[in-house]
Amino acid sequence: MFGFRVTDRDGRARAGVLSTPHGEIETPVFMPVGTAGAVKGVLHRDLEEAGAGIILGNTYHLMLRPGDALVRDLGGLHGFTGWTRAFLTDSGGYQVFSLSALRRLSEEGVSFRSHIDGSEHRLTPERSMEVQMHLGADIVMAFDECPPWPAPREAVAEATDRTTRWARRSRAAHTRSDQWLFGIVQGGVHLDLRERSARDLIEMGFPGYAIGGVSVGEPKDDRRRVLESLDPILPTERPRYLMGVGTPEDIVEAVARGVDMFDCVLPTRNARNGQLFTRNGRLSIRNARFRDDPRPPDPDCGCLTCRTASRAYLRHLHTAGEIAAATLMSVHNLFFYLDMMRSMRQSIRSCRFEEFRLDLLRSLGGAQGSPEPS
Amino acid sequence: MFGFRVTDRDGRARAGVLSTPHGEIETPVFMPVGTAGAVKGVLHRDLEEAGAGIILGNTYHLMLRPGDALVRDLGGLHGFTGWTRAFLTDSGGYQVFSLSALRRLSEEGVSFRSHIDGSEHRLTPERSMEVQMHLGADIVMAFDECPPWPAPREAVAEATDRTTRWARRSRAAHTRSDQWLFGIVQGGVHLDLRERSARDLIEMGFPGYAIGGVSVGEPKDDRRRVLESLDPILPTERPRYLMGVGTPEDIVEAVARGVDMFDCVLPTRNARNGQLFTRNGRLSIRNARFRDDPRPPDPDCGCLTCRTASRAYLRHLHTAGEIAAATLMSVHNLFFYLDMMRSMRQSIRSCRFEEFRLDLLRSLGGAQGSPEPS
Repeated sequence: MFGFRVTDRDGRARAGVLSTPHGEIETPVFMPVGTAGAVKGVLHRDLEEAGAGIILGNTYHLMLRPGDALVRDLGGLHGFTGWTRAFLTDSGGYQVFSLSALRRLSEEGVSFRSHIDGSEHRLTPERSMEVQMHLGADIVMAFDECPPWPAPREAVAEATDRTTRWARRSRAAHTRSDQWLFGIVQGGVHLDLRERSARDLIEMGFPGYAIGGVSVGEPKDDRRRVLESLDPILPTERPRYLMGVGTPEDIVEAVARGVDMFDCVLPTRNARNGQLFTRNGRLSIRNARFRDDPRPPDPDCGCLTCRTASRAYLRHLHTAGEIAAATLMSVHNLFFYLDMMRSMRQSIRSCRFEEFRLDLLRSLGGAQGSPEPS
Repeated sequence: MFGFRVTDRDGRARAGVLSTPHGEIETPVFMPVGTAGAVKGVLHRDLEEAGAGIILGNTYHLMLRPGDALVRDLGGLHGFTGWTRAFLTDSGGYQVFSLSALRRLSEEGVSFRSHIDGSEHRLTPERSMEVQMHLGADIVMAFDECPPWPAPREAVAEATDRTTRWARRSRAAHTRSDQWLFGIVQGGVHLDLRERSARDLIEMGFPGYAIGGVSVGEPKDDRRRVLESLDPILPTERPRYLMGVGTPEDIVEAVARGVDMFDCVLPTRNARNGQLFTRNGRLSIRNARFRDDPRPPDPDCGCLTCRTASRAYLRHLHTAGEIAAATLMSVHNLFFYLDMMRSMRQSIRSCRFEEFRLDLLRSLGGAQGSPEPS
């Protein structure tokens, strides 16, 4: 039912296939974020057409609304939402630390108040597993503590060790054989803490490893160093998931350092704010120069939006506050991400990844690519 | 290029075909409202799949934003929006009286301030024609004055006669042969004023006649009397368009009185507020009893929404403020309207319209159908 195999390598970059009960997924893969069980602004059908094979649901949001017992009773996330391809849920750890009010943290877990209605809730490794087993995603995450950045080394060390203990409890509490439970490596920007976290988790043995506590404000160079230090430690035959990352540049740099899986709200959130990703860089649809621009967002793109809508029309819809603006631009940005991943996989298979990486960085107008990581 | 023919009759109800440069449209027809050049919450592709052959754009909104000259430069509404089927634009008259600020009305036209940015604008019959020729819809409307309800008879009479004079000026100013210009019958609830308005317009000779100044708060019985009085006066071989109407019940009652064309924001606006139309009556998705209801909105409906989403999921998306809620429910409500019109046309062709009308009124939970109008 489950499996992962690396089919191709180019430098440290890997291409592979992740098998789940809801389909095979080629890696490196980008997973659109469907916080509340729907990717914002985009219907399932359009996600499928764009080529999404797996989407993410947020444990924190779904346990609060509509509630995990309800989702379970209606057939889990697949039955409830009607999405027939794979699902991944996070542990709730990240959001409970970033969104909820009045948190009280102990070894047992976290008590908090809902950001929606102030009601009291509790997340522990056991409760996170219960919620995620109710939600029924294909891939679920061990409950973790995500320390903020910056934080004193001592606090990061404490959170990292607690995450390891919680990973053990998560594993003990998780009993669904039709789900894969991943461990989450913490340790902030401290390479020794990261290494300890990874080794402790590997000793327990998980079918996949997530790298958490990134994309919380730390310098990109620190993140790259973390990835480079983890690459030789993490088992090569297990999928590696960099949580909450990121920009196209971030993703290609992480793939260059051996990462297989990504999720981020960026393509949909930016779309709602009028920012489009194109092969020639980012484009803010609010810009007055697009007022009468009859070209599609990206003339080389094959998505529904680029086949049917001009920049002028999108700018008008965005300015007028029309829902269609959010939908059309989200569809485009997701297509851009998913298409970028397709090209990236192809470049790894044909051993042209480094060329692809440099081209991508150049075309996005980012900094010139740094040389292949040593 | 243009044409209209009545192909079937059943009582006063008519089925026919309206030919436009952007396709043939079977009547009676419902036209979804695309105020700013997009039907709120619904992509063109989904409108086409639901069977929409013609949509409406609002002259008032489009002249203010993005501006009619811009739309003209980008290929008219068809080129600008990418909608390839037929378009109809209203005259701007209704909205200038209902939305704009600081109106000054004279025989020449109306000066007003934009509800968007307070900028000053002017609509006259000539300017309304210029705007609508720039927008380039297939069917356009003569500029009219829509009196409020209730209003003193004298005020309604004045508005009606001015509408007739403005219709003459509209006709003189309208020069595009690839557009059909309809006259608008006014006269409020006063049958003699309605008759005078209709006869004056018929004398000028329009290819189609709209009935304006309805759905402004007047009793439904008054509206029905107006339709019954106009039916024998309006030329049978010309399409009749009841502007801004209405509920399914309103539409079937108007078809029973000889009307061919309708538009209304109801299906999309109600969808955004969580109200769904079904064969078994209206359904408010906010209702707590749908919390765990695994059934689609309407088990007998074939729309994308009913094929893929449960009431429980829609309720959750609506409660969570997800864009997909508005989209999925708008798609369903429009499909309901368009499917109702398909069944209505079929019932006229097979001389079962009265049975259809009574069934519809019963199933929607409305008042029992009154007998066929005499």
